[in-house]
Amino acid sequence: MKRTERIGAIIRILSVNPNKLYPLSYFCDLFQAAKSSVSEDIQAAKQILERIDNGQIETTAGAGGGVKLIPYISDKDAAALLNQICEKLRDNNRILGSGFLYTSDIMFDSNIIKRAGEIFARRFMDQNADYVVTIETKGIPIALMTSHMLNLPLVVIRRESKISEGSTVSINYISGTSERIQKMSLSKRSVTPRTKAIIIDDFMRAGGSVKGIIEILSEFEIEIVGTGVVIASTEPQKKKISDYFPLIHLGSVDENNRKVDVSPNSLIFCKNNL
Amino acid sequence: MKRTERIGAIIRILSVNPNKLYPLSYFCDLFQAAKSSVSEDIQAAKQILERIDNGQIETTAGAGGGVKLIPYISDKDAAALLNQICEKLRDNNRILGSGFLYTSDIMFDSNIIKRAGEIFARRFMDQNADYVVTIETKGIPIALMTSHMLNLPLVVIRRESKISEGSTVSINYISGTSERIQKMSLSKRSVTPRTKAIIIDDFMRAGGSVKGIIEILSEFEIEIVGTGVVIASTEPQKKKISDYFPLIHLGSVDENNRKVDVSPNSLIFCKNNL
Repeated sequence: MKRTERIGAIIRILSVNPNKLYPLSYFCDLFQAAKSSVSEDIQAAKQILERIDNGQIETTAGAGGGVKLIPYISDKDAAALLNQICEKLRDNNRILGSGFLYTSDIMFDSNIIKRAGEIFARRFMDQNADYVVTIETKGIPIALMTSHMLNLPLVVIRRESKISEGSTVSINYISGTSERIQKMSLSKRSVTPRTKAIIIDDFMRAGGSVKGIIEILSEFEIEIVGTGVVIASTEPQKKKISDYFPLIHLGSVDENNRKVDVSPNSLIFCKNNL
Repeated sequence: MKRTERIGAIIRILSVNPNKLYPLSYFCDLFQAAKSSVSEDIQAAKQILERIDNGQIETTAGAGGGVKLIPYISDKDAAALLNQICEKLRDNNRILGSGFLYTSDIMFDSNIIKRAGEIFARRFMDQNADYVVTIETKGIPIALMTSHMLNLPLVVIRRESKISEGSTVSINYISGTSERIQKMSLSKRSVTPRTKAIIIDDFMRAGGSVKGIIEILSEFEIEIVGTGVVIASTEPQKKKISDYFPLIHLGSVDENNRKVDVSPNSLIFCKNNL
């Protein structure tokens, strides 16, 4: 293969599996090329992605080293994505009454949710997490895409324990706003004790579900190293948890005037936040 | 940008959004290059992916035309994936009793499920579907990845109607094996009547859920143009539906001898099946 072909092939292969580490020898074998040429090709591929600001190629030296693509979303693309989601949320046909908004089409839109997952991946990639954890149902797509971008397993907490989950640990918790008792259930097979997890969910009002997730994970002595939610409601101001990273703030949903007050979390673009 | 850089950039950008059509002018603007050069670059990119058998670049001419990447999984990679899943399923630690197997780690593994989604995408890409439809919970990842590969919206049917889904249509149906009455509920906002859908799910025993999905979609006169499941149980032989495409057949789960009988659906590699 010629140099241009090798560079294109490297970009394609790394793009298919973000954050997966490929040893240099993988490409040497594939291309029947010397390490020195492959190293040069990787450098060229790296520069191309930098030039279009679409992903970062990282190389690590040594025995366990190799090359991987970090699906780094640029500030510009992240801002455009958040504005796009806000624009959609402002559509007053989404107003359902009782302050609820219809968001399923957004949460199940793979293109939107994949890029939102890149924002979470960028934020949490240095936390050395072992899992991405969510609770069914609407948080599953964003948690799956985040787990894919970080190359981590996804763990889904169920509302009810199912026979197909094997033995489970269950807790009762108080949902944030309605103060109802709810249940969540985690398969014992799905996690290893004393590991680290990132929690990802679609929506947070008072933080009751996230607090429940923290509690059920604490049964396995699992440490939470980050919490991300796509939309956080500004009310109630006092949440049951303090450390969380929302992409979008949802203010009032005015049923009478058919207005939805929503804004991107501008703090995410401050230094060291992304 | 130089030619090698343009080709690499095209491969990266098309890889990020599979099946998304980019007009030629998008790349002309990005590279400040003439249409003729960009056309040549695209041809070169196409040949690179063919060479490594990892995705197909398709161009369509004319006003609404452009270029897109079809995440075409090769026969070899599909066979390797199915063998990998079977190998995992044979691990007798998965046996849960009553013939149940623990499969959540597989269904929530984004790397496995993404490639399984490529198999479904390859199978169903010419069906001109408008949606990928699934029912919560464990089918969501595979349905999401399939929808991503086909660049289609995902619709998730819920077990219970939720306030956040707006007005819904619900049905009662008989689950295949246990003959229990179950409920499913579809948000009216999530679909447009008289469209086409592909059904994707993680597991099928007697086909009761899929039959229920077909029934609830028929309330909207939605036509089913394909049904894919990751694992289909060989028992009962007589299913409630006849037209489905499984990746893997699950035979007996022998609790006493701790053996799981599982095999790839070899028919998928026959001509015209994939």
